[in-house]
Amino acid sequence: MPDDNCLFCRIVSGALPATVIYEDEVSLAFLDHRPLFPGHTLLVPREHVETLGELPVSMVEPYFKAAQLLARAVESGLEAEGTFVAMNNRVSQSVPHLHVHVVPRRKKDGLKGFFWPRTKYKDEEEMESVQTKIAAALKKLE
Amino acid sequence: MPDDNCLFCRIVSGALPATVIYEDEVSLAFLDHRPLFPGHTLLVPREHVETLGELPVSMVEPYFKAAQLLARAVESGLEAEGTFVAMNNRVSQSVPHLHVHVVPRRKKDGLKGFFWPRTKYKDEEEMESVQTKIAAALKKLE
Repeated sequence: MPDDNCLFCRIVSGALPATVIYEDEVSLAFLDHRPLFPGHTLLVPREHVETLGELPVSMVEPYFKAAQLLARAVESGLEAEGTFVAMNNRVSQSVPHLHVHVVPRRKKDGLKGFFWPRTKYKDEEEMESVQTKIAAALKKLE
Repeated sequence: MPDDNCLFCRIVSGALPATVIYEDEVSLAFLDHRPLFPGHTLLVPREHVETLGELPVSMVEPYFKAAQLLARAVESGLEAEGTFVAMNNRVSQSVPHLHVHVVPRRKKDGLKGFFWPRTKYKDEEEMESVQTKIAAALKKLE
């Protein structure tokens, strides 16, 4: 169900304008107004789904085929050297409607990113304890 | 074809050890040894594929179903508040074998991330020019 208070639902319905880049039956993609770099595109499912975990199974294939296509098009269309393709689920998610960020990347573009600093596991035991917890959650979900 | 020089192909083949979290016919997931936070998991296709753009169409659905499942399991298993799910294609990609990072997130966990600072388009014209370039690339790809 569309949510009238949701910015992205309002873009999907046409109530708010956007610079649309791509659309199909399941998804819509448009330029982020405040991009990391020009060409930063947001891909949303038309349906109001908050996070990746809640995306209906039937939408996984068309949604990520669209993400793949966009990653290729943003890279080649803007003559970029690569892309950053990411989702924030709940934490750091500015609009609670699932969106894949597709961002053109170039070497030395200044994007330090999420990926530093890294930490270390104290020991093998800590790693195994984490493994066990995730494995137990997987068992419940599968 | 597996690549003997590829770290992730060697994990997939069992030549290198890893703390495996999940596996199916298409994919394997294991703990990153130098995590952003404990539970930081890398999901790789068993086949040596470098970037999202090169993932065979037949693998898109199983690979991202696994990513979805992992995002749910990492969040619930570690009692996190959310997840960060991301791919670096070429730029910032430490191992040139496609991998989805699934990272547990908590509010105020200190991860500033890729998402700042933002920039602005000079004007509508710049936005439209970017839109046109990506649209042309999409046309070629579709």
